[in-house]
Amino acid sequence: MREVLVVGSLAYDSVKTPSGKAEKSLGGSANYFSLAASLFAPVRVVGVVGEDYQPQDKEILLNRKVCLDGLQTVPGKTFHWEGTYEHNLNEAVTLKTELNVFAHFNPKLPNHYQDSSYVFLANIDPTLQLEVLSQVKKPLFVGMDSMNFWINSKQDELLKVFKKVDIVFMNEAEAKMLTQTDNGVRAIKNVSELGPKYVVVKKGEYGATIYSKAHGFYQVPALPVENVVDPTGAGDSFAGGFFGTLASRTSSSEVPSWTDLKQAALAGTVLSSQTIQDFSMKALVKVDKPAFDSHLHQLKGMIN
Amino acid sequence: MREVLVVGSLAYDSVKTPSGKAEKSLGGSANYFSLAASLFAPVRVVGVVGEDYQPQDKEILLNRKVCLDGLQTVPGKTFHWEGTYEHNLNEAVTLKTELNVFAHFNPKLPNHYQDSSYVFLANIDPTLQLEVLSQVKKPLFVGMDSMNFWINSKQDELLKVFKKVDIVFMNEAEAKMLTQTDNGVRAIKNVSELGPKYVVVKKGEYGATIYSKAHGFYQVPALPVENVVDPTGAGDSFAGGFFGTLASRTSSSEVPSWTDLKQAALAGTVLSSQTIQDFSMKALVKVDKPAFDSHLHQLKGMIN
Repeated sequence: MREVLVVGSLAYDSVKTPSGKAEKSLGGSANYFSLAASLFAPVRVVGVVGEDYQPQDKEILLNRKVCLDGLQTVPGKTFHWEGTYEHNLNEAVTLKTELNVFAHFNPKLPNHYQDSSYVFLANIDPTLQLEVLSQVKKPLFVGMDSMNFWINSKQDELLKVFKKVDIVFMNEAEAKMLTQTDNGVRAIKNVSELGPKYVVVKKGEYGATIYSKAHGFYQVPALPVENVVDPTGAGDSFAGGFFGTLASRTSSSEVPSWTDLKQAALAGTVLSSQTIQDFSMKALVKVDKPAFDSHLHQLKGMIN
Repeated sequence: MREVLVVGSLAYDSVKTPSGKAEKSLGGSANYFSLAASLFAPVRVVGVVGEDYQPQDKEILLNRKVCLDGLQTVPGKTFHWEGTYEHNLNEAVTLKTELNVFAHFNPKLPNHYQDSSYVFLANIDPTLQLEVLSQVKKPLFVGMDSMNFWINSKQDELLKVFKKVDIVFMNEAEAKMLTQTDNGVRAIKNVSELGPKYVVVKKGEYGATIYSKAHGFYQVPALPVENVVDPTGAGDSFAGGFFGTLASRTSSSEVPSWTDLKQAALAGTVLSSQTIQDFSMKALVKVDKPAFDSHLHQLKGMIN
C-alpha cells in the first residue's frame, strides 16, 4: 500500500446537461480524483482554494482521511468552471474558465509529501503540473490528465509534461485533436509516441482503452448507465480509481505491472460510471467498498 | 455442426469512402454473411441475381462449399446499392437503392433447405424475410438484421419479423432511431422489448454489445484497425461469423447457450475487423482459419 499525491483543481462548477443544471456546485479534478482514490489508498492533495471555499466541502475529503496539508487557502475566489453538455454527453463545451486563485498559485509541497510514490497531475495548467512534479524526490509512477483548454493554449508546456510521466489519460476527442487524426487507434499510438509508457484513452459510454508499445491494447467497456445526468468528473473519478488501485496493489519499490494496470482500469470504470449518475460529487460520495465490489462484479461479468 | 440458411442480397455496390471509391463491386448482405459463416459451418443461400451477375462472383462462395441451390438468376439487373461514408465511418449514407431483380423476387426454398436449423434473415425487405422464414419447417435459432432504409419505409413489417426471431442485429444509430432514444443502453433494452430474446448492437470501432433480459450485457471491443478503408459489409461479416460459430458449436436440437453467443460475438468481431480493411469483399475473402485464429487470439488478449 502506497500513498497517492494529486495536484489539481478544487472548484465550484456551473454545469448544464440535458438532465438539468447545477450552479456553483463542488467540483474540480483533485476533488473527484481524491474521493475516488481514497477508497483504496491514502491520498495527499496539492491545490489552492479561495476564501469562499466552504468548510463542509473540505470535510468530504477529510472524512475519507485525505491529507489536505498541501491545500492552500488564499484571498480571492475559488477556481470556477462553467460548461455544458448537449446531445454528445462524451464532450463538454467549456463556456467559462475562471482561474481565480489558480492564476497566481505557487505550489509548495509540505515536506512529508516529497517522498510520494504515486503522483497524479490532474487537469490543471501544465506549468503547475511541472512545478509540483519537480518537488517530488523519487516518484515511482507518475500520471497526468489534460483537456482541450490546455492543448489549445499551452501545448508546448503540455508536451514537456508528457515526456516526464509514465501514463497519460485523455479523452478520445482530445487525443485525436492533439495528434491530428480521425482514427482512434492511430490517436492512442500517436500519443504514446509523445513520451509516456502507457496511454489511457477515455471514450465515455464506450469505455476506455489502455495502450503500451510493449503490451498492446487492453479494452474496458463502460458499465451500462441508462440515465447519464452529468458527465463532469467522470475522467477524474476514473483516474482516481485507477491510481488508488495501483497504490493498493503494489508495495515498496515495485513498479505496477500490466496486470495491475488492467485491474486499475476496471476500478476506474466503476467509479466513473457512478459519478455520472448525479450532478457534482453527489453520486460518487455515496460509493463505499461494498457498492464498489458489487459494480466491479457486474463489470467483470460483461467481459468474461 | 449444423447448417446455416441465409436470405439476403447479392449485389453490386458503388461506395465512396475517405480512402477512395469502388464502382459496382461485389457486395450484398448474403455475400458477406456467407463468406464469413462458411469458415465455420455449411451455408445455404436464398437470393436472386440478374443476368449481369458474373460467374466468378458465384465462384467465391462455391469455393467455400456454400450451397447456391436457392439462388435464382432472372432477367434484369442485380440489386445495386450506392453509398458513401464521410468522417463518421460508423454510418453509411445511402445515395441510391435500386432493388432491380429484388423488386419481384418470390423466394422459393429448395426442399432440402426446409429443415435448416440456423436461419439468418439478412438486411432485405422484411416481407421477403417473413416469406423465407415461413418456408423453414422447424428453425432452431433465427436471426435478423435490418437498416434505416427499412425502418423508415416498412416499419410495421419489420416489427413483425422482430417478433419471430431469437436475435436481432442492429447498428447503434439504427437502434436509437427505431426506439427513439439518445441513450445506447436504453436503445438496446428497448429493442429487446420488441420481441427478440437477444439483441446485438454493433458500434463500429467501439465493438458490439449483446443483451438479453436473462443474462444482461456482454461487451466485445473491436479489434484495432488503423486504416478503415470501407466499412460496407462489416455488420454482415459480423453476423456471418456469429451464426457460423453458433452452428459449429451446437449439435442436434441444442439451442445456443449464453456462452455460445459470447464466443460467436468474438468470431463476428474478428471477421468484421478484416472486412473493413479493403473495398468490397477483397479482405474478407483472404481470411482463412489460421488468420482467423491469430486475430481471435489478439482479441482475447485485449479483454482478458
